[in-house]
Amino acid sequence: MTSTMDGIDRPASSTDLPLVERCASLPAGFRAGGLAAGIKASGRPDLALVVTTDGPAAVAAVFTPNAFAAAPVRQSRANLAATSGDPRGGFGWASAVVSTSGSANAATGAAGDADQVEVGRLVAAATGLEEPHVLHLSTGIIGTRLPLDRVEAGLAALVPTLAADEGGWEAAATALRTTDSATKLATTTVELPGSDGAARTIRVSGIAKGVGMIHPNMATMLSIVLTDAALEPAVLWNLLRPAAARTWDQLSVDGDTSTNDTVFVLASGASGAAPVLPGTLGAAALGAAIEAVARDLARQQAADGEGATTLITASVTGATDDAEARAVARIIISSSLVKAAAHGKDPNWGRIAGAAGNARLAIATVLEAAGLDPDEAAARAGRPVRLDAALLRIAIAGHPVFDGRTGGPLAFDRAAARTAMGGPELRIALDLGLGDGRGEAFGCDLTEAYVIENSEYTT
Amino acid sequence: MTSTMDGIDRPASSTDLPLVERCASLPAGFRAGGLAAGIKASGRPDLALVVTTDGPAAVAAVFTPNAFAAAPVRQSRANLAATSGDPRGGFGWASAVVSTSGSANAATGAAGDADQVEVGRLVAAATGLEEPHVLHLSTGIIGTRLPLDRVEAGLAALVPTLAADEGGWEAAATALRTTDSATKLATTTVELPGSDGAARTIRVSGIAKGVGMIHPNMATMLSIVLTDAALEPAVLWNLLRPAAARTWDQLSVDGDTSTNDTVFVLASGASGAAPVLPGTLGAAALGAAIEAVARDLARQQAADGEGATTLITASVTGATDDAEARAVARIIISSSLVKAAAHGKDPNWGRIAGAAGNARLAIATVLEAAGLDPDEAAARAGRPVRLDAALLRIAIAGHPVFDGRTGGPLAFDRAAARTAMGGPELRIALDLGLGDGRGEAFGCDLTEAYVIENSEYTT
Repeated sequence: MTSTMDGIDRPASSTDLPLVERCASLPAGFRAGGLAAGIKASGRPDLALVVTTDGPAAVAAVFTPNAFAAAPVRQSRANLAATSGDPRGGFGWASAVVSTSGSANAATGAAGDADQVEVGRLVAAATGLEEPHVLHLSTGIIGTRLPLDRVEAGLAALVPTLAADEGGWEAAATALRTTDSATKLATTTVELPGSDGAARTIRVSGIAKGVGMIHPNMATMLSIVLTDAALEPAVLWNLLRPAAARTWDQLSVDGDTSTNDTVFVLASGASGAAPVLPGTLGAAALGAAIEAVARDLARQQAADGEGATTLITASVTGATDDAEARAVARIIISSSLVKAAAHGKDPNWGRIAGAAGNARLAIATVLEAAGLDPDEAAARAGRPVRLDAALLRIAIAGHPVFDGRTGGPLAFDRAAARTAMGGPELRIALDLGLGDGRGEAFGCDLTEAYVIENSEYTT
Repeated sequence: MTSTMDGIDRPASSTDLPLVERCASLPAGFRAGGLAAGIKASGRPDLALVVTTDGPAAVAAVFTPNAFAAAPVRQSRANLAATSGDPRGGFGWASAVVSTSGSANAATGAAGDADQVEVGRLVAAATGLEEPHVLHLSTGIIGTRLPLDRVEAGLAALVPTLAADEGGWEAAATALRTTDSATKLATTTVELPGSDGAARTIRVSGIAKGVGMIHPNMATMLSIVLTDAALEPAVLWNLLRPAAARTWDQLSVDGDTSTNDTVFVLASGASGAAPVLPGTLGAAALGAAIEAVARDLARQQAADGEGATTLITASVTGATDDAEARAVARIIISSSLVKAAAHGKDPNWGRIAGAAGNARLAIATVLEAAGLDPDEAAARAGRPVRLDAALLRIAIAGHPVFDGRTGGPLAFDRAAARTAMGGPELRIALDLGLGDGRGEAFGCDLTEAYVIENSEYTT
């Protein structure tokens, strides 16, 4: 770091996120499991189930904004709306999450909707839970029907094996996988006061799949996060929404948003901690724990992007506000030119600056993710993202390469920068020099392998 | 075509565009030329100049919306604003267009601005024209300074050779090229009444470069369109704006918008035709001629995208309005998954439908391109693009593959579809079944060659 780059290379995430371990640790109040039900032709695990042990858990959800949302997304949204009475379907109560891998049940019309209803009935019958308390995930080929007979037989075999331990939770994570090269797990803890005043250790643990593309069709990003904290669904939703906006919504492998993307957070309340009330220190601590798990899962997903060899993190400080910082970060990790340069270990600041200059294209998406009212978001989106080349600073893998305050391009050690770009994570840092806004985004390099995998004849 | 696909495979462009020839035909009132001035290390032609023969021409322009617009863009905008008095800088008067290839003069700070002013002075000195009447184009490496001595020597050699014929115009087109595999030319004619009432044949002829990426940096799309029609700058601007929104603004090779993208349309008035007045049949005819040239150049540019082997045309009908049709078309040709499937000749309608479902991500860009007032565009962008899977129909290369009205996926001859996808142009047609809106977009396939070219170490 030269003195002209003071501060630019600090992480742009919230600075107070708790540490996360990449392991399975099932919070109290849940049982989980997974197995191979024969939905996938490969015979790999493809059916996951999580159930609560003591009545419905509070749930908050984030669903794909794709206009052609798949049947499981629409069914889950409807169930949450029914249990909460809130028509938006973003939060409510549930006792089970079922996930099928191998068929997305997307673009399957009314027959597909009926199939998904039947999946809910099968889960309710197999577990004794109520059908509106079943949430649905699915991923796989678009346009094919779910093999309901295999789902039914799979559930009959799976339910007796559900376990309230790491093994069950990890089995569910494995059954969530499609082309993922590794099982994705993240766990953290947070201390909250119990009803008796004594501290309780709350667990927050998540599993995820994607964003690597599913052979042979659309990418799907799925995640289930469980906690034994106690809180109302609407309170949980208000913690998840900003956390997701700073993490999963800032993740892009190739810019496509699938018809099935879904995140569920379930809170069982089984820890014995007192209910988390909005606006309290406890709520802030639980929100930070959820964000930490979400951020780590998003980073695992980006690093495992199809064909990817490098996780790219764009870290933006000095923006007019956080939303503008996220828009700049997002457009950089979305740029095919930046992604290809990362693959080639080319410290090409021109492509980074050029991409940043198009940040206006990302601001509407960032605001949508932040959950702003659509009209408010649109009005905000109509204003350009503030950028000034004379204040811009850029560092690539720790090497300052551009400082608009001193005329622009900086002399730097290209060989050393190339070497630094060769690690498993490439950090691109920008300081806009305008304000206190900060944000980050997660992507991966664009490789020949991506093209080859996705241009194979697969329909 | 089966009967379920009636009408879906008709072109979604304006149906009354005149035919275009891919040849150079210099309209009256201009001289043009180009040569190798030594700006490019390769020694290929890199300096182009077009001048008017009888005083300033009316000009309309479209500039990059990139926040880090390069010095030539800012200088041209300022000059147009000065000659028209309109602060937006979208139209005015000019006597010359100069283009330098090899250095983009982007991200070069105040020194780069001063360099571009000096280019204007050099052109004015070499031609005897006035400096505010010089318009600027530049393309090439970001962050390097223009070699002004070579530009000066090149102008001294070029000005005496400028020719009022096809040869001069084609030489200018050649000097505009960077990594283009072919010179891009398009010409059409239109009959307009002369001042004496007799018909005059008006020529509209354009040259272009890009969108193939410039080795070693950003893509730049440049075009100059000349006509000998007579009209006021503001009238010309109102013809160019919608034509560009339906053509160049619907073109994407890899989603990046460069710091230097520029289109100039110059009208000399030398044809002897009467001035074209707004709202007349003559204005409509001239607008269609400009759009036909723009559309053909945009198709040449997409077909010549870096690493591309196939031009992809997305053609959308049945949308709620034209803007929504263009948003759907644009998001389809922008999808990496669709682009990779095109490369693999995979009739993968799931990826097409999935991409279409994200059309909301493109509507703000489409509205911005259409020149809506930013607040109006933002308000419009806040409304989702209307889509209904139960009405959607998709055809790939003439093969109907999906009809939501009959349950979704259609049986089709996959081998025949694959063969049909192997031609130089792949047409993806969607009918949304909602209204009369229609639009199209132009892109290209994503290939290993794109990744290889853009991941080579080039900084």
